[in-house]
Amino acid sequence: MSNYMITGTSKGLGLCLVKELLKRPDSSVGLIFATTRSAPTPALQKTIDESSGRVVNIIFNPVDIESVKAALPAVENHHGGAGLDVLINNVGWGPFANGIKEMDNLAEVFNVNVMSVQNVSTVFLPLLEKGKLKKVVNITTTVSSFAYQDLFARLPAPAYKVTKAALNMLTLQWGMEYRDKGFTIFGVSPGWLKTDLGGEGANLEPEQGAEATMKVIDMAGKEEIGRMVNIRLEGFEDGPGDRYQGGVVPW
Amino acid sequence: MSNYMITGTSKGLGLCLVKELLKRPDSSVGLIFATTRSAPTPALQKTIDESSGRVVNIIFNPVDIESVKAALPAVENHHGGAGLDVLINNVGWGPFANGIKEMDNLAEVFNVNVMSVQNVSTVFLPLLEKGKLKKVVNITTTVSSFAYQDLFARLPAPAYKVTKAALNMLTLQWGMEYRDKGFTIFGVSPGWLKTDLGGEGANLEPEQGAEATMKVIDMAGKEEIGRMVNIRLEGFEDGPGDRYQGGVVPW
Ligand SMILES: NC(=O)c1ccc[n+]([C@@H]2O[C@H](COP(=O)([O-])OP(=O)(O)OC[C@H]3O[C@@H](n4cnc5c(N)ncnc54)[C@H](OP(=O)(O)O)[C@@H]3O)[C@@H](O)[C@H]2O)c1
Ligand SMILES: NC(=O)c1ccc[n+]([C@@H]2O[C@H](COP(=O)([O-])OP(=O)(O)OC[C@H]3O[C@@H](n4cnc5c(N)ncnc54)[C@H](OP(=O)(O)O)[C@@H]3O)[C@@H](O)[C@H]2O)c1
Repeated sequence: MSNYMITGTSKGLGLCLVKELLKRPDSSVGLIFATTRSAPTPALQKTIDESSGRVVNIIFNPVDIESVKAALPAVENHHGGAGLDVLINNVGWGPFANGIKEMDNLAEVFNVNVMSVQNVSTVFLPLLEKGKLKKVVNITTTVSSFAYQDLFARLPAPAYKVTKAALNMLTLQWGMEYRDKGFTIFGVSPGWLKTDLGGEGANLEPEQGAEATMKVIDMAGKEEIGRMVNIRLEGFEDGPGDRYQGGVVPW
Repeated sequence: MSNYMITGTSKGLGLCLVKELLKRPDSSVGLIFATTRSAPTPALQKTIDESSGRVVNIIFNPVDIESVKAALPAVENHHGGAGLDVLINNVGWGPFANGIKEMDNLAEVFNVNVMSVQNVSTVFLPLLEKGKLKKVVNITTTVSSFAYQDLFARLPAPAYKVTKAALNMLTLQWGMEYRDKGFTIFGVSPGWLKTDLGGEGANLEPEQGAEATMKVIDMAGKEEIGRMVNIRLEGFEDGPGDRYQGGVVPW
């Protein structure tokens, strides 16, 4: 039985990851700590209400380390010291800009996409050390691959590309350093999803992304440490910059 | 005759780049705007005094966009609207941390290594548009290459690695977008230099790095756009993670 924590669960992929885990028997998935910045949305509240106490909402602002620290005791106390098995850093923001010169929110986007991961990983590390699986999954995107930049040249989201590339390097640093401590820390690109971030033109429902992402997380072992792993989805083996064939995405 | 601007010139590589340019005749190098955060150090002041007016100190804090904006008129007025030909974003900071969990200054390092480049490039772009060469050079490091992370596993500078990787993606975004406007925007890794940042154990003098960096800048054309280019230095073709064979560093 494993305990999970997922950040940014009020909507989108985060919410779908919570629902995906709830499909599993409680012999496999224990508690799911679903973090949000503010009180649960109706959609998350419904999921909590129907979860027989398995989904526990934890409120903090991931960008503010003091806020994250203040939330630690609530998680610690709730499950009687059993530890966390899997942390999924899902929070993310991908605002558009009219051009690289017009991008005026790079520092804020960095806080959301990178500092949140550093803050949450650092604060909850003691609970992960107590857990069995010791997996930390940072949700990233193929859009941040240097090798794929030509494919995404027309996506006007420079701050997203820059900060997720930084996140990938952060993931690699964590992965390399904690490998010998039994941790599996890596990134997953969940596919292009119909969420507020992905937009209506995306080719996958967030539920499909969540299911495929959880498969990657289940299967991940030492080889995935530090990498950006792509989802695998039958019927979506090719497409413009979005091929879901699994495997490692080149930097 | 070309006008240059170099940031972070009070010491280290930045100061040596100023001196390197001063070796050239004024038919080739016109004005050199040497920016610093505060009043010139004695070493920079000496260089200014001996430059026959070619080196002009400009003071701003590159991390603070308002401070950078306030400095624009001084540069504009000084050279009578001739424009800037080459901007070298040299400012950088690579503090050590005892581990990735202990890294507590990531946002500050991001401001220095990435926001400074965004701020200075954005504010001085109009002057570069007036210039002939239209080169923007962001000083980066092989330490930020994903492909080289195993080589640098024991360098305890995670914030440096993460933020310079972000800088590389920023450079690529600028490079791709401004390619069609006649700009050549790229990164240069100047080698491992004996400066406050590089430490005493480095294998090159900052003067060697500056000379080699200027050669890369002189030669760079369309192929270098968006890339991280290594210096080329005879006698240093191999070494532990520091081979100066020129060419593009893999991401
Ligand atoms: N959609 C796609 O096509 C796609 C593709 C590749 C990767 N991804 C990644 O998948 C993850 C989830 O994205 P999504 O598509 O589900 O987006 P979404 O529906 O917009 O949800 C993003 C979540 O991130 C949090 N968040 C957003 N802005 C924030 C801010 N300024 N400060 C703090 N938290 C903020 C929110 O958390 P709260 O619940 O606390 O409000 C929100 O639930 C992100 O990391 C994204 O980069 C998405
Ligand atoms: N040394 C190496 O081995 C090496 C290797 C690869 C790349 N590099 C890169 O080369 C560039 C120059 O480094 P260096 O070796 O010459 O280092 P340095 O001697 O420490 O000089 C760094 C310069 O950056 C500015 N700077 C440092 N901290 C700052 C802060 N907190 N806020 C604003 N500005 C700050 C300073 O500008 P002021 O003059 O305004 O004070 C200083 O002159 C950096 O981008 C570095 O990453 C160095």
